Amino acid sequence: MNTNRINSWLPSANMAGCEFPLANLPYAVFSSADQIHHIGVGIGDKIANLNALEEAGLLDSLDQSLRDAVKQSALNQLMGLGHKQWHALRLRLTELFSNSVYQDKVEPCLIPQSEVAFHLPCQIGDYTDFYTSVHHATRVGSLFRPDNPLLPNYKWIPIGYHGRASSIRVSGEAFKRPAGQLKAPDAERPVLELCKRLDYELELGIFIGKGSQLGTPISMADAEQHVFGVSMFNDWSARDIQAWEYQPLGPFLSKNFFSSLSPWVVPMAALEPYRCDWTRDAEDPQPLDYLDSKANRTKGAIDIKLEVWIETAKMRANNQPAERLAKSNFKDSYWTIAQMVAHHTVNGCDLKPGDLFGSGTQSGPDLEESGSLLELTVGGKNPITLSNGEQRTFVEDGDRIILKGYCGDDQLRIGLGQVDNLVQAGNKP
Amino acid sequence: MNTNRINSWLPSANMAGCEFPLANLPYAVFSSADQIHHIGVGIGDKIANLNALEEAGLLDSLDQSLRDAVKQSALNQLMGLGHKQWHALRLRLTELFSNSVYQDKVEPCLIPQSEVAFHLPCQIGDYTDFYTSVHHATRVGSLFRPDNPLLPNYKWIPIGYHGRASSIRVSGEAFKRPAGQLKAPDAERPVLELCKRLDYELELGIFIGKGSQLGTPISMADAEQHVFGVSMFNDWSARDIQAWEYQPLGPFLSKNFFSSLSPWVVPMAALEPYRCDWTRDAEDPQPLDYLDSKANRTKGAIDIKLEVWIETAKMRANNQPAERLAKSNFKDSYWTIAQMVAHHTVNGCDLKPGDLFGSGTQSGPDLEESGSLLELTVGGKNPITLSNGEQRTFVEDGDRIILKGYCGDDQLRIGLGQVDNLVQAGNKP
Repeated sequence: MNTNRINSWLPSANMAGCEFPLANLPYAVFSSADQIHHIGVGIGDKIANLNALEEAGLLDSLDQSLRDAVKQSALNQLMGLGHKQWHALRLRLTELFSNSVYQDKVEPCLIPQSEVAFHLPCQIGDYTDFYTSVHHATRVGSLFRPDNPLLPNYKWIPIGYHGRASSIRVSGEAFKRPAGQLKAPDAERPVLELCKRLDYELELGIFIGKGSQLGTPISMADAEQHVFGVSMFNDWSARDIQAWEYQPLGPFLSKNFFSSLSPWVVPMAALEPYRCDWTRDAEDPQPLDYLDSKANRTKGAIDIKLEVWIETAKMRANNQPAERLAKSNFKDSYWTIAQMVAHHTVNGCDLKPGDLFGSGTQSGPDLEESGSLLELTVGGKNPITLSNGEQRTFVEDGDRIILKGYCGDDQLRIGLGQVDNLVQAGNKP
Repeated sequence: MNTNRINSWLPSANMAGCEFPLANLPYAVFSSADQIHHIGVGIGDKIANLNALEEAGLLDSLDQSLRDAVKQSALNQLMGLGHKQWHALRLRLTELFSNSVYQDKVEPCLIPQSEVAFHLPCQIGDYTDFYTSVHHATRVGSLFRPDNPLLPNYKWIPIGYHGRASSIRVSGEAFKRPAGQLKAPDAERPVLELCKRLDYELELGIFIGKGSQLGTPISMADAEQHVFGVSMFNDWSARDIQAWEYQPLGPFLSKNFFSSLSPWVVPMAALEPYRCDWTRDAEDPQPLDYLDSKANRTKGAIDIKLEVWIETAKMRANNQPAERLAKSNFKDSYWTIAQMVAHHTVNGCDLKPGDLFGSGTQSGPDLEESGSLLELTVGGKNPITLSNGEQRTFVEDGDRIILKGYCGDDQLRIGLGQVDNLVQAGNKP
């Protein structure tokens, strides 16, 4: 289904650069005056209430399981139905928003996005964070392990580790700077103090749709049929806590104090036109068979443009706009979404609808394309200077960090929305 | 409440060595003929159906919230009510099972444990595995990092990492040997093969009861009020997958293929008589304030005896009984349950009712007290010989591994039940 050139009867959906044209149709969970959580779909500057569409009889042509699923307060049930049902729903929504014969019936089901509150799109069962950007891994590795930046397993294994689901929040929530054990390299003992090296991580959030059975791996051929869609994800990190705690079992309190997702889940179908070759250097090893497929080589990657913006307290006070810190692209990822799924399940680990994968910080080959301040400031050694003269090595209290993502260009754009968090002063321990 | 010497009108609960005397009263989720999941409490050789007790009017003296919670199909709601409600329920159950005036009304609510199927006791939101045995950490560290066995952070931080909740199953479920990337130290490249070094880990499972708010640490003084109870836990591990994947972000596929819990959750109140000093060596550092309290020093530890048993396919064929491989004790743990809770939340990470902590493999100071084969066989170098002449370096197909735990002695015993899994041949990848 190429919906790129079909227009909607809703003018805002057809405007150049609109993040939510007819070709996008991302899902979200929202509430309005009635405070009830509903599933919605973004179109132009509106969100369509799927419960209302169903009650208006506009989804009667769909399977009962689908009509039940869209009336839930979270996406898990819809996610679990699988790609054929997702396709049927997307087709019907495209019809409803494009054919003006439906306009009178659909319009009462639309609410301005500016008037709703967003919630997490689903109950996240398990959250796994990957580490798929070789540029990030190399730059960070050189700081934590100067002698040994990129470990020998990196180009064989899509490295991942388990994260904390309970502390994931939707965009817009502020959080307090965390405290934790810190130990200066030359100090004799650690201390409990507020984190001094607070950092963002520019990531894609990848939602599992249909689950899998314990003991049954998912092949590369089937992998993307288990993926419901993608969001923006900020894997907030406390670098000083991380440096002291992470060996030998990995990051823990340095990550689980707060993570944040954009409200929108963009279906994989909307990303289809932006698929591209999965390329790597000539000297990089051929992956093992379970991580390889022709389809993955020719269209495993996705051209998703990613950006980090900052708005400091001073900028806010002076009515200055937020400023871009960096941009990168998910197509530079060393490992693809299909490879993450195939690897995660090769040992029989089961996936459930609503599980979340973080892509890992997405950094490009150039230093300016760094998806974290740790990289941009070379471990805090080279502060960056903002246009108003302020300097940053890490995130300061009062800073708002905004991650954005989109496919396409100024004309036709598939927006992933943004994840936007304000950092507040922490409670001194 | 010291219920140690009170007898039940149910004779099996009063027998010497019974795992479920009146002083225990562990919770479980079970189903019988009607296939419906109910919350039950173990007493003698029976399980009391709490839904049936409530419907018989026997819990009418309790708060409505408690009466609602015990009628659920999982423990989460009860867990979330907090320790005052848990205490009220425990007091009432003790009364019902000890005062013979209730016998006629209670007996119809009892089912032989041998006639029910057990299920996971709750929905596990997040699962965190700790690493609290210094003896385990030192012995394993010496295998993975001969030059650097115990890392400098070990005696300051209750090291933990996030694990996978979806693949946790209740005792009794068999599983297939997993496949994964393995790389021999001298091999040029990894291969995808069945795990050759499959291992158990003798752990305690610790269930969070009342949750906490994001941004709000739990102090040592409050920590155990957030703990509902403990189970036996086997954190099955693939050592060869682990060795190749675990750097820099920790274990992943080497752990998440299968983990297993005993059906019973023993309330903290039942463990009270077995609390003991939390001791460490004179040269060990004084923990930071947020990990220290007088109550923790004097009764932070718990004397829980732990055992590993094996039944090989050959033993089964020859009607030989299972054989004990090792025993250890949770009181040798370097870190206590309260310290795990206080550390996990010091950065503001929130906990939810039903979250699970693994204690980490519990090994004692002597090699024979090793809670894993990796330690017992010194990394597979020294096979152990079973009494029937069979040898083991790691777990083989057809082996059943049984972990057991209990407090007390042959007279009065508080059983944690057992976690029992059969390993089946894996599917060749």
